[in-house]
Amino acid sequence: MDIKAYMETLGQQARQASRALLRADTQVKNRALLAIAEQLDAQRERLKQENAKDLEQGKTNGLDAAMLDRLALSDKVIDGMIEGLRQVASLQDPVGEISEMSYRPSGIQVGKMRVPLGVVGIIYESRPNVTVDAAALCLKSGNAAILRGGSEAAYSNRALASAIQTGLEQAGLPQAAVQVVETTDRAAVGELIAMPAYVDVIIPRGGKGLIERISADARVPVIKHLDGICHVYIDDDADFDKAVKVAFNAKTHRYGVCNAMETLLVAESQAPKVLPKLAGLYVQEGVELRGCEQTRQWIDIKEATEEDWATEYLAPILSIRVVKDVDEAMAHIAQYSSGHTESIISENITTARRFLTEVDSSSVMVNASTRFADGFEYGLGAEIGISTDKFHARGPVGLQGLTSQKYIVLGDGNIRE
Amino acid sequence: MDIKAYMETLGQQARQASRALLRADTQVKNRALLAIAEQLDAQRERLKQENAKDLEQGKTNGLDAAMLDRLALSDKVIDGMIEGLRQVASLQDPVGEISEMSYRPSGIQVGKMRVPLGVVGIIYESRPNVTVDAAALCLKSGNAAILRGGSEAAYSNRALASAIQTGLEQAGLPQAAVQVVETTDRAAVGELIAMPAYVDVIIPRGGKGLIERISADARVPVIKHLDGICHVYIDDDADFDKAVKVAFNAKTHRYGVCNAMETLLVAESQAPKVLPKLAGLYVQEGVELRGCEQTRQWIDIKEATEEDWATEYLAPILSIRVVKDVDEAMAHIAQYSSGHTESIISENITTARRFLTEVDSSSVMVNASTRFADGFEYGLGAEIGISTDKFHARGPVGLQGLTSQKYIVLGDGNIRE
Repeated sequence: MDIKAYMETLGQQARQASRALLRADTQVKNRALLAIAEQLDAQRERLKQENAKDLEQGKTNGLDAAMLDRLALSDKVIDGMIEGLRQVASLQDPVGEISEMSYRPSGIQVGKMRVPLGVVGIIYESRPNVTVDAAALCLKSGNAAILRGGSEAAYSNRALASAIQTGLEQAGLPQAAVQVVETTDRAAVGELIAMPAYVDVIIPRGGKGLIERISADARVPVIKHLDGICHVYIDDDADFDKAVKVAFNAKTHRYGVCNAMETLLVAESQAPKVLPKLAGLYVQEGVELRGCEQTRQWIDIKEATEEDWATEYLAPILSIRVVKDVDEAMAHIAQYSSGHTESIISENITTARRFLTEVDSSSVMVNASTRFADGFEYGLGAEIGISTDKFHARGPVGLQGLTSQKYIVLGDGNIRE
Repeated sequence: MDIKAYMETLGQQARQASRALLRADTQVKNRALLAIAEQLDAQRERLKQENAKDLEQGKTNGLDAAMLDRLALSDKVIDGMIEGLRQVASLQDPVGEISEMSYRPSGIQVGKMRVPLGVVGIIYESRPNVTVDAAALCLKSGNAAILRGGSEAAYSNRALASAIQTGLEQAGLPQAAVQVVETTDRAAVGELIAMPAYVDVIIPRGGKGLIERISADARVPVIKHLDGICHVYIDDDADFDKAVKVAFNAKTHRYGVCNAMETLLVAESQAPKVLPKLAGLYVQEGVELRGCEQTRQWIDIKEATEEDWATEYLAPILSIRVVKDVDEAMAHIAQYSSGHTESIISENITTARRFLTEVDSSSVMVNASTRFADGFEYGLGAEIGISTDKFHARGPVGLQGLTSQKYIVLGDGNIRE
């Protein structure tokens, strides 16, 4: 098989389908989403049969229990995909939104119209439900999608793609609006990320290694985040109860997630009171603490090394640093944060405003847990990823992040004089 | 000189300055802009002396009259830069704008805050006034700038940089907020476009060759347009007078600009009447016409080749094609347009709405000349470039295009349950 030629064919088909999607109104797109949901329901048995082949091969290849669990298309997972499709159908369509229309002295009326990006390439690992979730968001935002799942889910993804394409056809949309890469050859990824003529953006979902490789080699924009080294800073003017509540929640609500706090910063004046209280709670929860020298004056914990400040633990481990004031806190964040999410605990509006303005992360919070940095919590309805880049979309990326705005001009025969 | 180390130093300094700019409010930034304007006025003689060295060397190197003209810092050019700085000072500051704040069921309040991109790298050719214009826009939008001008303007750019840095210092801002690359070694460009840790976006301004090279090698996002192959389509339902007026203006108002029309598309039903009329006007103006077979049934002109449809003439040449209807017109545009600007002439609202929705260019117009696609005409106040990409900013890029939006969350001790 000529991988380059195959991928170019997918790309050309996707580009062509994206033009048909520009013409598709909200009703047609919703009809497709609901038709796909029905197909998944109707094809349950076939989906499970195909998934069983992946599971069997996974066992043979020695996948561990957690990986097999992520790979499984149980009835519960299928129900979740169906529910997700219905939810995306119920979201407002961002495409076509016209804003900021105003008259100019020349007599023309100028404004912006929200439009799809075009073709979105999604590269992900074992979970086959991403195939449906990503397809739904791309479709609703008017983008054609090329999906490249993990080789361990090849049978499942092919079966899901077939159900999706039946649904698209029933709604009168081209099947190429959602395509699944049918080869497990790794070269296909290399082609997908280097076809600017056919692919407008790449969204990698998976481990840091995968995302780093893709970012380094991509010839098209990539929406991604590599790390979630999130901070909570307990300010001089923090309310004690709020500080304890938020700092505890930000670390212990879930450990393996990108919006969990990894480093706690505490103002000198707060340290004597807040550190012993929090340490008690963390230790009770089984969280390992590592602190700077000043922290260790107040609580008896392991020493934090330089490496700790730069580490995303994704585990019940927390590094703690005592800082002089908000300036030192922000300097620490500027140096070590991955630009994901930071929160200040303070009752002082001037300090809070400075933190909101000067901290350069995709989400900046006051008196709230970093765990809120999430598309659903922000009301986006769904999320295709989180971006810690500064260009285009920052933070949780929903339907709007899959669109951009073009200018529109209305005139009555106006010319430049 | 170790170019890599030198550029990394510039990058580190720029990153640090960008943090100071996050803290600088509108008043401070405006004060700096006005102080720079005063410096340019006070240092006129020195600027002209340094510029004379560039001009002399340019003559020695055989630059032609047009190039020497672009290189010259006359009093008029200096006045223009001063006026530009004052104008940018008078523009609304996009930074800090908070929008879409709303309460979520969890009790948190979520919205977006507009923030600078960080560090902007600008690569341009001979015109030294770009140094000041670009610095002004970056400064007002809170971005640090690294400017790499043409080697033929090295003395002028260094003198301008010194005036800019004096102005910055007077306003209490770090001099590194605007830095000019002081080596003419080409390797400096290679480094500048490949330092994602220090540079957030590259804006190349110059010939197509320069922009293509930079886009191919850049490791950071690039705001650019390569071509301006703009179309006007005269629809079946076009008003004859508007069609003639707009099609004539779009081609003949100025030839060497990216928003000039390069191909005219005419609906079959309009061809017999509109083509002879327009041909007379174009020929009178000295415009060379090249047409498809059907066009040549109505007017006696040269044959257009496949190459013509894909060419940005930037000259008094126009290709003309007769099409069956709006669908054929949009198919031609989808195939040959560079995604810059297209305009339909039509009185039919349904056709106009289809054209606005389905044509995927950075500016799409109804009954208006493509020549309006411009930051000043759109009311942006100033323009750092035009983007034909789909990611981030599309069309004319002003202050807002040099910013992005982060999420902000306000709470009262809220945690995820």
